[in-house]
Amino acid sequence: MTGGILAGLRIVEGSAFIAAPLGGMTLEQMGADVIRFDDIKGGLDNDRWPVTRDGRSIYWAGLNKGKRSIAVDLRKSQGRELLTALITAPGEGAGIFATNMPARGWLSYEALSAKRADLIALNIVGARDGSAHVDYTVNAITGFPMVSGPVGHDGPVNAVAPPWDIATAYAGAMAILAAERHRTRTGEGQRIVLPLQDMALAATSALGYIGEAVINDIDRPRLGNEIFGTFGRDFRTSDGRHVMICIFSDRHVDALAAAGSFKQAFAAIEQKHGIDLKSDAGRWHARNALCAIIEPWVAAHTADEVAGALRKAGALWAPYKTFRELAHDKEAVVGNPMFTVLDQPGIGRYPVAATPLQFGAFERASPRPAPVLGQHTDEILSAILGLPAHEIARLHDQKVVGGPK
Amino acid sequence: MTGGILAGLRIVEGSAFIAAPLGGMTLEQMGADVIRFDDIKGGLDNDRWPVTRDGRSIYWAGLNKGKRSIAVDLRKSQGRELLTALITAPGEGAGIFATNMPARGWLSYEALSAKRADLIALNIVGARDGSAHVDYTVNAITGFPMVSGPVGHDGPVNAVAPPWDIATAYAGAMAILAAERHRTRTGEGQRIVLPLQDMALAATSALGYIGEAVINDIDRPRLGNEIFGTFGRDFRTSDGRHVMICIFSDRHVDALAAAGSFKQAFAAIEQKHGIDLKSDAGRWHARNALCAIIEPWVAAHTADEVAGALRKAGALWAPYKTFRELAHDKEAVVGNPMFTVLDQPGIGRYPVAATPLQFGAFERASPRPAPVLGQHTDEILSAILGLPAHEIARLHDQKVVGGPK
Repeated sequence: MTGGILAGLRIVEGSAFIAAPLGGMTLEQMGADVIRFDDIKGGLDNDRWPVTRDGRSIYWAGLNKGKRSIAVDLRKSQGRELLTALITAPGEGAGIFATNMPARGWLSYEALSAKRADLIALNIVGARDGSAHVDYTVNAITGFPMVSGPVGHDGPVNAVAPPWDIATAYAGAMAILAAERHRTRTGEGQRIVLPLQDMALAATSALGYIGEAVINDIDRPRLGNEIFGTFGRDFRTSDGRHVMICIFSDRHVDALAAAGSFKQAFAAIEQKHGIDLKSDAGRWHARNALCAIIEPWVAAHTADEVAGALRKAGALWAPYKTFRELAHDKEAVVGNPMFTVLDQPGIGRYPVAATPLQFGAFERASPRPAPVLGQHTDEILSAILGLPAHEIARLHDQKVVGGPK
Repeated sequence: MTGGILAGLRIVEGSAFIAAPLGGMTLEQMGADVIRFDDIKGGLDNDRWPVTRDGRSIYWAGLNKGKRSIAVDLRKSQGRELLTALITAPGEGAGIFATNMPARGWLSYEALSAKRADLIALNIVGARDGSAHVDYTVNAITGFPMVSGPVGHDGPVNAVAPPWDIATAYAGAMAILAAERHRTRTGEGQRIVLPLQDMALAATSALGYIGEAVINDIDRPRLGNEIFGTFGRDFRTSDGRHVMICIFSDRHVDALAAAGSFKQAFAAIEQKHGIDLKSDAGRWHARNALCAIIEPWVAAHTADEVAGALRKAGALWAPYKTFRELAHDKEAVVGNPMFTVLDQPGIGRYPVAATPLQFGAFERASPRPAPVLGQHTDEILSAILGLPAHEIARLHDQKVVGGPK
């Protein structure tokens, strides 16, 4: 609906939770017209937490910004027929369907592509065998929970930010563009299957964890907040704040040395341990010695003092924040042009992010509120499916479709 | 190089670490020709851990599979001219550059687009002001570390799997396809800027954390392994294994009740607490009561018994695994058609993942080994830049380019 880089594309989305809605919103924030359909009573995530004090879902609002919403009774055959017509409607940029609902019966690729042969359908599934999975169950088998969390902790530590849902959202959006490219060139549509579990396993493989386990025949131990194979850890300031300090390159060694006047101390470490702090392996082997120097320095200064010194020296570091601190942070949110304070109907005013991508040929569009359930039912039935007003009224009367009163 | 959905595209990549190399590899695994250039001595991540016992980087191998490698002395003007010619080489699917190196001087969009006006250049940066960041520093400000890890833990808990690097990789690959679509339609190239920090902040916003903090004016507490706003947690079996058990829908309530014969106990919870376990809020409010039923059942059975019952009932669950267990797991890796046992030169044989995407119109290509540094220097100089053999020999002699002996 905006004039972004994907203007002219239309994606119909049958979704819930994170991966599929975030993938659709990603395309919307680049200018595609994204229509989410839901059951007339709302989908599985309609009331999902976090919610406002009177029960409105902040979660749903966050993942459906800028989409158009149509609400249909999914148990009625007439409702299913309307959605089939919407998914397979003609038009060059239309005929794209993304879902994490079971792709069976009327929502199967076979049924839908019978109505539009060049349909592109993205099916996000749990595991490749079709079994149900969510980020939390997928993450359990990756191995990461057994090495996350404090050293000495017994048992798994789950991820709070769902890494595999987020990756699946972007990979799915990318796959739609790849398939649309192929369709533009050949006229051919296709089904794309993306299992959440395979997404997680492919990333775990790419990051070297499976290779390390097989080749070195070891299980990496739990390392707390230390970054494996180089230097990085959290430190506590005199006023009880926490900072993350890392070294990833020569420049970061010098900057950290300058920030804390560690030049001689670092040289002494190199001599004593016979290592080079300008190599990953050197830093990793000398990490305890490095901490013994950095820890008292951070502990003797306030967060402001530490921040000032690290920033001035160009070190690789960051302060830890809580969500509430982040929400009011001048640099990251309040003064960040990616954010706009939106009035989300039924919820209120708060800063909301646009796409993180800045395309040189387009102005970044401001984020738009999420729709109310069924907000665009009538305009979609009229403009896309060509239904006359009396027919739309009949569908409402028969409770085949719904929308806000 | 393979016959995938992106055959005919060529991306030149100047990269290190995770986001940029993983983005390039993602496109390669869909059939694009991806050429990674590195300094003749290897890039910042050439020896990055994990490494084999004799110091070969398993990390580098994991993130550069199937690419072609050209090694050039980046400090020599002749080396920079060769790479400029490579990045801006003619051809319909060529003229695409992805980098997380500083886009200054010869690598700036201005300098490169002067040689090819329709260049597409993706610049992955740390923060929007150009300052350096890695996943660990970006994650610190998102708020997630302060709510991750065991209840009662004091201080931040970092993510081990880098969520923002992974998201940036896929978002960057997606952005390249969007820009290439625009170029095909209009002839216009462009620069795309993607800040790692904005990627993390946009996802944190989408997931509702900033909205919750502002609207409800609270900081969500640390919840350990519990899933906020529904039901999910880890449990320990009689033989000391861990399983994740979740409820996200009505079906999962019934399945869990069937697996553990909890039907009456669940009904008693609903009556006593006056809640409905088939609602998110009901499960969340009754989570301690649910745990009091599930915990002793899991603790009284072995992992095999628990797995058998949960699987049979169709519950939403997963066993936790270590990386080594995962690497040898029959279902997830050994018998998963996404994986191929590759012989990675210098490292050895281990299972390696292809793309998790299954495109209906293409066979999924098997993963290919990562190149040795400079493995394709000569073929690239010859086939793409059209240099004769004697000129290539001279470049080697003058140490402008490098390659394996």
